[in-house]
Amino acid sequence: MADQLSQVFSALADPTRRDIVARLTAGDSTVGDLAAPYDVSLQAVSRHLKVLEEAGLVSRSREAQRRPVHLEAEVFDLMTKWIERYRRQAEERFSRLDDVLAAMDDTGAPDNPLKEGTAS
Amino acid sequence: MADQLSQVFSALADPTRRDIVARLTAGDSTVGDLAAPYDVSLQAVSRHLKVLEEAGLVSRSREAQRRPVHLEAEVFDLMTKWIERYRRQAEERFSRLDDVLAAMDDTGAPDNPLKEGTAS
Repeated sequence: MADQLSQVFSALADPTRRDIVARLTAGDSTVGDLAAPYDVSLQAVSRHLKVLEEAGLVSRSREAQRRPVHLEAEVFDLMTKWIERYRRQAEERFSRLDDVLAAMDDTGAPDNPLKEGTAS
Repeated sequence: MADQLSQVFSALADPTRRDIVARLTAGDSTVGDLAAPYDVSLQAVSRHLKVLEEAGLVSRSREAQRRPVHLEAEVFDLMTKWIERYRRQAEERFSRLDDVLAAMDDTGAPDNPLKEGTAS
């Protein structure tokens, strides 16, 4: 799973691939249709799709002649879970800092223990 | 902004860098402390921190001698906004499909218009 997360982040670290994913949210699409708005070769778009497919972000039908590209939107959950977990931890830490600062305001304490060790 | 998003996704496409970010949610840390659990050189960890810093995910104090590394957690919002926007679009599309399928069940329609064009 950690490895897929690396692949998903890496796949989305390219504006064209993010744009392909964004367009696939509107519906399945052929490689030709996906390539149309870009000033790059069909081959280049196929390479981008391969990266997205290896990351599990898209799949392609084996049966249909058009082989439409399909977005596997549930892979977004992998990223969201990771981001939300650490965002929550960071926010909790800041809210604890706020509590400490608020408590210091209440008591009018002149010394700021948080500055300890950061003085140059 | 699009470019920062690419940099953020690229920075997080590495398990060690994700681990560094995860550990920084608990509080600021020195390079030495961050490097301790990994079987890599201090230089390698410094390179990882440079990638995270260029993506805006961490900052380092210029003043303090220890130069602690600080997580810029609000950068998570950049990713979350992008992911949530397209996840919502994908979900809306699937719920519309569900409505179509439910309506077909009600009328007992034998033909499935959704299969049109996907036959080989």
